[in-house]
Amino acid sequence: MAEDTYTIFTGNIIHCEKLFSIETLENGFIIVKGSKIVAIDQLERLEETKKNLEISKWQTVTLKDTQLLIPGLIDTHIHAPQYPNAGLGYDLPLLDWLQKYTYNLEAKYSDLDFSKKVYDAIVRKTLGYGTTTACYFGSLFRKSCMVLVDSVLQHGQRALVGKINMTRLAPENYLETPEESITETETFINDVLDKKSRLVKPIITPRFALSVELDLMKKLAVLASKYNCHIQTHISENCDEVCTVKKMFVCNEYADVYHEANLLTNQTILAHGIHLTDDELKLLSKKGSSIAHCPSSNSRLQSGLCDVRRLIEYDVSVGLGTDVSGGHSPSIIEAMRSAVDTSIHLSYGKPDYKHINCYDAFCLATLGGAKALSLDDQVGNFKVGKDFDALIIDMDVENGAVDLLQSCNASELLQKFVYLGDDRNVVSVYVAGNKVK
Amino acid sequence: MAEDTYTIFTGNIIHCEKLFSIETLENGFIIVKGSKIVAIDQLERLEETKKNLEISKWQTVTLKDTQLLIPGLIDTHIHAPQYPNAGLGYDLPLLDWLQKYTYNLEAKYSDLDFSKKVYDAIVRKTLGYGTTTACYFGSLFRKSCMVLVDSVLQHGQRALVGKINMTRLAPENYLETPEESITETETFINDVLDKKSRLVKPIITPRFALSVELDLMKKLAVLASKYNCHIQTHISENCDEVCTVKKMFVCNEYADVYHEANLLTNQTILAHGIHLTDDELKLLSKKGSSIAHCPSSNSRLQSGLCDVRRLIEYDVSVGLGTDVSGGHSPSIIEAMRSAVDTSIHLSYGKPDYKHINCYDAFCLATLGGAKALSLDDQVGNFKVGKDFDALIIDMDVENGAVDLLQSCNASELLQKFVYLGDDRNVVSVYVAGNKVK
Ligand SMILES: [Zn+2]
Ligand SMILES: [Zn+2]
Repeated sequence: MAEDTYTIFTGNIIHCEKLFSIETLENGFIIVKGSKIVAIDQLERLEETKKNLEISKWQTVTLKDTQLLIPGLIDTHIHAPQYPNAGLGYDLPLLDWLQKYTYNLEAKYSDLDFSKKVYDAIVRKTLGYGTTTACYFGSLFRKSCMVLVDSVLQHGQRALVGKINMTRLAPENYLETPEESITETETFINDVLDKKSRLVKPIITPRFALSVELDLMKKLAVLASKYNCHIQTHISENCDEVCTVKKMFVCNEYADVYHEANLLTNQTILAHGIHLTDDELKLLSKKGSSIAHCPSSNSRLQSGLCDVRRLIEYDVSVGLGTDVSGGHSPSIIEAMRSAVDTSIHLSYGKPDYKHINCYDAFCLATLGGAKALSLDDQVGNFKVGKDFDALIIDMDVENGAVDLLQSCNASELLQKFVYLGDDRNVVSVYVAGNKVK
Repeated sequence: MAEDTYTIFTGNIIHCEKLFSIETLENGFIIVKGSKIVAIDQLERLEETKKNLEISKWQTVTLKDTQLLIPGLIDTHIHAPQYPNAGLGYDLPLLDWLQKYTYNLEAKYSDLDFSKKVYDAIVRKTLGYGTTTACYFGSLFRKSCMVLVDSVLQHGQRALVGKINMTRLAPENYLETPEESITETETFINDVLDKKSRLVKPIITPRFALSVELDLMKKLAVLASKYNCHIQTHISENCDEVCTVKKMFVCNEYADVYHEANLLTNQTILAHGIHLTDDELKLLSKKGSSIAHCPSSNSRLQSGLCDVRRLIEYDVSVGLGTDVSGGHSPSIIEAMRSAVDTSIHLSYGKPDYKHINCYDAFCLATLGGAKALSLDDQVGNFKVGKDFDALIIDMDVENGAVDLLQSCNASELLQKFVYLGDDRNVVSVYVAGNKVK
């Protein structure tokens, strides 16, 4: 869309107005100017709004009755280079799975042609499922990570992209020295910033505590501070991992390691956090660090059931992640379903436990993810002033998973989307006002 | 296929040779004559086999490297009339959900045009996902159930179709008297048998213990015996249901009711069975009655985690069911994934528990389902003499959920199919040798 024209979307609109509260406009409109949302209201107030905003030139997108306008979905944790392994090798727990399946694949990304092929595929695939913002782990290789940045830019996704830091406990051909780790990361940050994109930012990405020395983590925290960067890593995914971390770093809690390294900031997102103690949750809450909840991955690698309700009660921000290829599916829609399943399974035997439902999962995948990535000033819902990252969902598409749609209302369309939707139901994807699918 | 010509399929073949043992032929062949499998072996023995069988005329189907030949999938429990509600209304537990969502929809099937529309859609949809055999609950209305039978015949699926029996605890316009129940059921059985189809059979279908009096159940058991019919109903899905049954029938266990009614035969399949006691499992095992495990439904309606491993240890046959619309998805592929998730979640905190994996789920969806429906003399795997019910799976289809297939072997293709497959990956469906998709 040109910066100076308006686009008016009319029809069923649903978004998470605040956590965990859904606003439904059955006959609503959203006005977009360039990349920004300038108005949202009931259709009956459209003419009045156009007048007030002095809109003289516009185009209209009129949704069908079977369509819904919703905010773009946010995948807060996904490993781009692991995409070819999606669906493979879930016979092993985390630490063995990393050695047998993951590191061997990731080591191949020194090949930039291979990188381009995979990264184009995963960016297109996730956009196809409605992921307008993705928080990517890349590989160890800086140049390969720049290929990922280029794919993201080319396809118009919003993303945080991280070059992994890893100096130990992986095959020799897939390790770096602490010195390389710092210089390559700083170069990577500058290379990404040189792209001068509003949509794509670098993120500091120590793989997880076992992969890097404390001293290197501290230096990465200094880089994060110097460039005002986001930080991502993993935490408390698996009981063996937690034990090993506590032994290796001689500490009381897993989170203490990241805390001591100054990696817990209000721009930090930690994947999993299944086995966090109350004290750790208090620490994360105090620091404003967030959790990327990856329910499918947690099942695939038999990591445990993450209690999202508990995280929320501790005032820790939570987003959803596919965690490809620990998770089998690059679909963040599937992650919503899986989050509901996990929460229901956790609720058994607890009469007072309120499991998260499909609307809560939708909130986690939109505003929740935006807050978890500290991007909620820009995206996550349809608040005036935010960027227009949005999906047009159609539950009545040819050969889609749903047919026989009986005059569903907006809420029912959303239910069908969360439980049965796939890429075929995501008919249009907008990022910062640009139509990218 | 004409009865007198042979078709030779060559390529990757995987099936469940016996429970829970997978046979993989990376370079295999299957020879089909009419509806029957006449040979299966390694490709190197094809010429020899053709000679031994004196095959002079044949056509060949050569699978691509990204394709797999697997037995057709079996959905042992699905409510055809509930299909329009798939994905809707999972805010309520079982007994309330039935009253609010289900009975009101099912009552509409007195309309035969509506019936035709829905039944054509669900039969096509399930065939699309690779369900070659389905065990259907219909509605209360005999003529509507015959519309379902006609849809099944028209589209070439294998099926058991049941007219529901229900005389109480539903809206007035959706009940029958015990007398109507018996006469309509017997007429339905005769109408189905008059079709003289090898593929479609009637099944006696009292909805569940709370829906019918003991006396009526006994009369239905007499009908089942008279016509040598299968029997299906629900058991022990929800704790409230179990309590209510025990109170209403003044019995020790839920299963005692069906036992007293003579409904527990070796052609009986019971949906759910989540909360069965050890004594009930012993009874089912002794009677040769089976369980339709419906993991997605159990999550949607917050019914509980069904321990399939325990059922198997008690020597009770288990198949998988979608239980649409208690389950959100008509995809039996999705049921495989959900069965694995459920089993993994049950395994937490039990160090010696062996959760079912994707291969086990595949066995449940094929040979397991065939045994549970007492159809394993005809279908379930690629044993010589059985009907050729089969799928050609392709994990490399345009716009499918999987791309970037890196030279996967047959087992890896199956893993990708179970974890990521959908209808797009099911490129051909055969029932009794006929290509129906
Ligand atoms: Zn991860
Ligand atoms: Zn059912």
